[in-house]
Amino acid sequence: MNSNKRLINYPKITKHMSEELGITVKKDKDFSEWYTQVIQKAGLIEYTDVSGCYILRPYIYEIWETIQEYFNKKIKEKGVKNASFPLLIPESLLKKESEHVKGFTPEVAWVTESGSTKLNERLAIRPTSETIIYAAYSKWIRSHKDLPLKINQWANIIRWEFKTPIPFLRSREFLWQEGHTAFATKEEANTEVLDILDLYREVFEELYAIPVFKGIKSDKEKFAGALYTTSIETFLGNGKAIQCGTSHCLGQNFAKAFDIKFLDEKGKKQFVWQNSWGISTRSIGIMILMHGDDKGLIIPPKIAPIQVALVQLIFEDSKKQILKKSNEIKEKLKEIKIIIDDRDGYTPGFKFNEWELKGVPIRLELGPKDLEKDQVVVVRRDTGKKEFISIKELSKKIPNLLEEIQNNLLKKAKKNLEENIIEVKTINEFKKAIENKKLVKAIWCGKEDCEEKIKTETSAKSLNIPFNQKKQKGKCFHCNKETDYYAYFGKSY
Amino acid sequence: MNSNKRLINYPKITKHMSEELGITVKKDKDFSEWYTQVIQKAGLIEYTDVSGCYILRPYIYEIWETIQEYFNKKIKEKGVKNASFPLLIPESLLKKESEHVKGFTPEVAWVTESGSTKLNERLAIRPTSETIIYAAYSKWIRSHKDLPLKINQWANIIRWEFKTPIPFLRSREFLWQEGHTAFATKEEANTEVLDILDLYREVFEELYAIPVFKGIKSDKEKFAGALYTTSIETFLGNGKAIQCGTSHCLGQNFAKAFDIKFLDEKGKKQFVWQNSWGISTRSIGIMILMHGDDKGLIIPPKIAPIQVALVQLIFEDSKKQILKKSNEIKEKLKEIKIIIDDRDGYTPGFKFNEWELKGVPIRLELGPKDLEKDQVVVVRRDTGKKEFISIKELSKKIPNLLEEIQNNLLKKAKKNLEENIIEVKTINEFKKAIENKKLVKAIWCGKEDCEEKIKTETSAKSLNIPFNQKKQKGKCFHCNKETDYYAYFGKSY
Repeated sequence: MNSNKRLINYPKITKHMSEELGITVKKDKDFSEWYTQVIQKAGLIEYTDVSGCYILRPYIYEIWETIQEYFNKKIKEKGVKNASFPLLIPESLLKKESEHVKGFTPEVAWVTESGSTKLNERLAIRPTSETIIYAAYSKWIRSHKDLPLKINQWANIIRWEFKTPIPFLRSREFLWQEGHTAFATKEEANTEVLDILDLYREVFEELYAIPVFKGIKSDKEKFAGALYTTSIETFLGNGKAIQCGTSHCLGQNFAKAFDIKFLDEKGKKQFVWQNSWGISTRSIGIMILMHGDDKGLIIPPKIAPIQVALVQLIFEDSKKQILKKSNEIKEKLKEIKIIIDDRDGYTPGFKFNEWELKGVPIRLELGPKDLEKDQVVVVRRDTGKKEFISIKELSKKIPNLLEEIQNNLLKKAKKNLEENIIEVKTINEFKKAIENKKLVKAIWCGKEDCEEKIKTETSAKSLNIPFNQKKQKGKCFHCNKETDYYAYFGKSY
Repeated sequence: MNSNKRLINYPKITKHMSEELGITVKKDKDFSEWYTQVIQKAGLIEYTDVSGCYILRPYIYEIWETIQEYFNKKIKEKGVKNASFPLLIPESLLKKESEHVKGFTPEVAWVTESGSTKLNERLAIRPTSETIIYAAYSKWIRSHKDLPLKINQWANIIRWEFKTPIPFLRSREFLWQEGHTAFATKEEANTEVLDILDLYREVFEELYAIPVFKGIKSDKEKFAGALYTTSIETFLGNGKAIQCGTSHCLGQNFAKAFDIKFLDEKGKKQFVWQNSWGISTRSIGIMILMHGDDKGLIIPPKIAPIQVALVQLIFEDSKKQILKKSNEIKEKLKEIKIIIDDRDGYTPGFKFNEWELKGVPIRLELGPKDLEKDQVVVVRRDTGKKEFISIKELSKKIPNLLEEIQNNLLKKAKKNLEENIIEVKTINEFKKAIENKKLVKAIWCGKEDCEEKIKTETSAKSLNIPFNQKKQKGKCFHCNKETDYYAYFGKSY
């Protein structure tokens, strides 16, 4: 077959269009500009006239839907049920738990008017829903038979932060799930905190291919109103750490503020023990930062809205056969999220770039030569490696390759995380490590005043204090107090 | 086997508790009190301190999840993709389409402050999202290749109505889906309007077991900013009609206000044709009103969070066998949403009442006598009919029975709808029919000024003008103008 005929998909692409499509900066040169370009050029978000509020376009929203589906299945197995609580919280209710209100009121968006009428009381758009949910819990919980009570909601949240907003990472509106549970005993609450934290680890490692470390937050960094906060954290290539999810034990703080009591089996009134836990669309931003490269996004196969993009190289004399073979391939890969890119007016090269920019894990190329050999060109997005796979092996090899890519992304990210950890013994070593954009491990006292000073001197903060440390005597790298654990520190989002 | 031993589930129920649980009014005597009792006593919602904003508790929220799952599958097959648009809309943006702003601003909740800072511009909490979505569409749509554009979002909406709020039916916050589509031609838009309206009919008839009639809204009742609005409507037992869902053709009104243009195949700039369409959690309220009876809710099997509740009659000497047999039944019905009610401290009678109140389609009763005969007592919630079914036939008979209940609910509701339609020829007949709480069918001119007068005189309004009428000359029952169609009228929510 002679295929040196006119290419039907005539290249209309101009230099200007090509520049508009591609990322014009290197990720390791200008991380923040790279991020801005990726999320816009790959069509993930759209800015609006309200600073910090973004449109999540279908391509990226589909990832959130996948996370929701996975997470819903897992929590429902644990007996958690979904519900819907109101968006608006009266000011008086928000102020019922004193630590909580201090933490959140500076960033609350207030509704003060409806139509042309001024409201009697300001209404907060929920910055989180503890207060409105626990006002209900105090009505619903009467007896030990009502416990445990485990409810989750998927919701939009507004926190009017005054730092520069960044899509996904620090947006004024974001989407999340918030779980709110109540138990008869502290032990049950403790167990669930860790159980959920491990589910979060699973979501990040298994779906997002992001390695995380689990631990407890310092007193300074814990959730406003919590007894203690546990978190999963990770480290990005740009020298910054980021919190991925939190699971809080609220103790009886809210139970006392909201009078949530139950009659125990002996007929005695007791306050419940409560937890709350959440992950948000911030996770999508972390994924973008973690895996992306100079060509754009790299989306892990398990959550990719498009797992395979087939680009046809169409010439006049083989057009019919190419189209037929494409459908055959689609049929063979019907369990896979595949798209056949049959758009006219774009060159194959343009299409290759676009699917790379959008982070599609595998690209297939099908041209006249491939038809002859009954094969297809297979290109991995993560490594760029190109191979030929015969059509009849596709339905076996593509799922395997997707799994391999998923594993490789996690492995690579793990290696990067481990290589960036530096253990320090003194404040000078600490400062140097932070300057060198490292993740710092240090023996530390955990005290709030010590952390204040560290932050002032280095602008780094504690991420968490990992679980399951070998107990060993040591001295705080900063204040020299005796202590028996280490913590992770870093600059963070 | 002698089973006249002490009943282990000792009745602790007092008269007070039993009254608290049961509905104390008849549905046809005091419809609105009946509704209020059902939604509270069945644990569907919780009131909050913000009037008109309710908590949707897990039992009822699960119905919304089922609707979402069904609807998502159907629209994705049609090429619609989900996305997420911001909650807050700047006042200037909301005011861009003049009819639209008139319709919605009186009921907007305004954010005017963040933290302790006054905002420069008021931000509306979305009462619907046309304006924020179409500002984005004007950036995304350039060429005929970008069309059709079909996006949906699941969202919370606030409309600060000043009439008395009613949970589900007229709440200030509600949940919905809003689809927003753009096409190159009016024909495509027209086709989709009806296609979606038929999907809504399907959701109501197939899932909610609610019969509806499809038609076009009068000019007075159409959506603010629409070219025309189509709707599905139904009629409730209390003399009131209710709108179930709407599918609007926006024409080019918003395209012109937001400058949404595309380059057609001949290189000419054209405005797009747009639709928007939505159904909301109001549908749950309609279901409650439609099917419920004096004992409480009746939930159609296809959307019931619990399809079968098994109540055990436990006596000391057969307890073990009852528990074993219950598990065997659960195993046989594992495709069914079944709950084994093994709570201590409640009598079987209390449990029967509770599952009836909660509208569970089938109740199973298992006692010592049933063990002997290897059978179970099966009670239908819709008819109260009781029968014995042998255990070995359960896995075949229960799914069939659920289907029968689903069909019966729709059939009964259809009959009720048809029986309540009255055709009238004069305004006096019209008034009498409305007084008699009927759904009125009348030849009508459809004019806005005529409708204003009808409303003033009768407090009824037009519901819709049904599709596919036989064209026939006639005169408007009210103003005597020549016309060729009839419409439905009623008092409505």
